[in-house]
Amino acid sequence: MKIAIQGDAGSFHHQAVTQHFDTSAIVVPCQSFGDVFGAMNRFEVDTALVAIENSLYGSINEVYDLIESHRYPITGEVYLRVEQQLIGLPGASLQNLSTVYSHPVALAQCEQYLDVNHPDIEKVSYHDTAAAVEFIKNQQRTDFAAIASQLAADLHGLEILDAHIEDNKANYTRFVVLSRTEAAPHNENNKTSLVLETNHQPGALARILSIFADNGVNMTKLQSRPIVGKVWKYRFYVDIEVAGPSLHNLLKTIKDTDTKVTILGEYTSDTLTT
Amino acid sequence: MKIAIQGDAGSFHHQAVTQHFDTSAIVVPCQSFGDVFGAMNRFEVDTALVAIENSLYGSINEVYDLIESHRYPITGEVYLRVEQQLIGLPGASLQNLSTVYSHPVALAQCEQYLDVNHPDIEKVSYHDTAAAVEFIKNQQRTDFAAIASQLAADLHGLEILDAHIEDNKANYTRFVVLSRTEAAPHNENNKTSLVLETNHQPGALARILSIFADNGVNMTKLQSRPIVGKVWKYRFYVDIEVAGPSLHNLLKTIKDTDTKVTILGEYTSDTLTT
Repeated sequence: MKIAIQGDAGSFHHQAVTQHFDTSAIVVPCQSFGDVFGAMNRFEVDTALVAIENSLYGSINEVYDLIESHRYPITGEVYLRVEQQLIGLPGASLQNLSTVYSHPVALAQCEQYLDVNHPDIEKVSYHDTAAAVEFIKNQQRTDFAAIASQLAADLHGLEILDAHIEDNKANYTRFVVLSRTEAAPHNENNKTSLVLETNHQPGALARILSIFADNGVNMTKLQSRPIVGKVWKYRFYVDIEVAGPSLHNLLKTIKDTDTKVTILGEYTSDTLTT
Repeated sequence: MKIAIQGDAGSFHHQAVTQHFDTSAIVVPCQSFGDVFGAMNRFEVDTALVAIENSLYGSINEVYDLIESHRYPITGEVYLRVEQQLIGLPGASLQNLSTVYSHPVALAQCEQYLDVNHPDIEKVSYHDTAAAVEFIKNQQRTDFAAIASQLAADLHGLEILDAHIEDNKANYTRFVVLSRTEAAPHNENNKTSLVLETNHQPGALARILSIFADNGVNMTKLQSRPIVGKVWKYRFYVDIEVAGPSLHNLLKTIKDTDTKVTILGEYTSDTLTT
């Protein structure tokens, strides 16, 4: 099974694939989120996995936009704890490092660690964490290190010089699985992602939330999309813990409130493993 | 007046400062958001300006966390349209470019433009957009270009080779102004940022939104912070179009619903200029 991801082999997207799919999954690396959807459009893959939110950086609205415009349903989700490793060549030692390469976001995530433990190491930006590992491998310099996932170190046969160096241990990313060939409904589905556009009346959103509460439906996410200068105009991303026939009864009631509802997908919820 | 910002002189943070403050404002560039708050803690500045959300990338939860833990009140906001410019040395021409340098986010924002118009240019990541402009200036290579703001080009005396090259014209960033010396209430204040933590009962949020609606108070933002595995436990960022005495009457009613309310700041709303 081929699965398009954003980033190189060994990236956190790849790690999310290994966590969710069995070992027959083959990742198709794409440079950008737009390229991931391009691979789906050109029938190169039937499945994609894309990051949709991060506990530190929030929702990735660009990905929501791509999902909405391409209409590939969400068929699964993966929570992945972001753990950064300091990676070097065999024979490298923490004392003799001159330069560390990684994606600027990964460098920022390990900034306190680097400043406190390795104040003299130069931090150089690279376009991808896993690609930085490949780069230092090709350079064959034992004074170079990269910051990336365990998987990237394993793929390139390099060594972990220091493990779990991320400053914030509560950093996790949520990914969603998208399918080009719409999946049959699963009995195990227990979660649904929606886009709600209320009518322009004050209180419309309060009424919808009351309907969820009255039906015992928990929300795991509720987020307005920033819209400037549109008073009483709301567009919301909502994740609710319900799917299947119960969902469709609920949505009938909500549509009666003059709300536009778009289902982004029904799927089985994932939980964050430590 | 000294204002701490994340990023170098000429960055989009700097551009937001020039849009909001008068010409006496002096920016104090900081490497990270954490460093901005460090400059406030060390009394190096009394004011900071930080990005809090972007129309494509969503809220920057890291900044919300820093604001909440440091308790510097929000005293203003700035909406800035993100316009990217292709910048080169005097004498450079679009036809002879070999390499373009910028922050990976800026490169990603201009990817379609580059792929369609300049498929042969190599794209190299740099840690900051404005620093990339300085880099190509120092290299004195007319085949190098940088992607950054108009302000960065002006500061370094370089030329715009192609203007408004961002793929998505609806890309804007919202910044907030923070004050170390708590400001006196302004009569012009008309907007408030809140953090709400409802009790664990279903329907608590619906009741709060009803209170807003019944009092004619518009929300410009409502966003749950992703919390994994906490059913019926909500923590919400809310921006409402009210401030001053009316706000405080409203909050009394909301506190009666057993909701914990934290005011991040009262300020005068900004509008997006084109």
